[in-house]
Amino acid sequence: MEPRINFITLGVADLERATRFYAEGLRLPRLKSPPSASFFEVGQIRLALYPRALLAADAGVLPAGSGFPGFALAHNVASAEAADRLLEEAAVAGGRIVRPARSTSWGGYAGYFADPDGFLWEVAWNPRLPAG
Amino acid sequence: MEPRINFITLGVADLERATRFYAEGLRLPRLKSPPSASFFEVGQIRLALYPRALLAADAGVLPAGSGFPGFALAHNVASAEAADRLLEEAAVAGGRIVRPARSTSWGGYAGYFADPDGFLWEVAWNPRLPAG
Repeated sequence: MEPRINFITLGVADLERATRFYAEGLRLPRLKSPPSASFFEVGQIRLALYPRALLAADAGVLPAGSGFPGFALAHNVASAEAADRLLEEAAVAGGRIVRPARSTSWGGYAGYFADPDGFLWEVAWNPRLPAG
Repeated sequence: MEPRINFITLGVADLERATRFYAEGLRLPRLKSPPSASFFEVGQIRLALYPRALLAADAGVLPAGSGFPGFALAHNVASAEAADRLLEEAAVAGGRIVRPARSTSWGGYAGYFADPDGFLWEVAWNPRLPAG
């Protein structure tokens, strides 16, 4: 496999709610999208929101599932203050801070929010890496 | 939030098995990694493998969860033949073809494989998009 991920698709319970969270709450740039999905340009990859049942059907798996989805996305920011600020923004937008940011064992500062469907985003400041 | 995803972290049941699948089976370029994780360079983002229980603990959520994880990653390829070939490679490497590739409603050709932990990858040829 070439080292490339073109899309990350999140299977959501309510497409309108999820779209509002990412487009208006977090202000990710939305791309032209068909009625059944919402695409966002996130650097070189696209974040897609798609109804969970349709995603399962497309993949040929059963849609039932619950609890920890087993993965997280991470977004680096330029400072500890920026991490706190983004977590607050996510909460205001309809997400939930599941772990407030704190200093980490690797010398950074990070916390997590969950989006309206419970998908986890780590918001991290890593002093050894550029945010981008 | 800036339009940026720095990491996708998959919480895996067996780090060695998952690392073998991605490093040897699919030949993704592995980065220097601590003993508890495996990092791969996948374009401008990093794919991280990390023990599922540790990922849940890091995020402050309960690790229990089952069934459809609710998301999929997508990898575009340059032809329908390349899609078939990659699905076969994933199966040989210890994954599972959950939906053989076929023509899609949007004019392309796509199928899905699951990695050893059940995480889904869509392998797609989109004649209107460059593979990269």
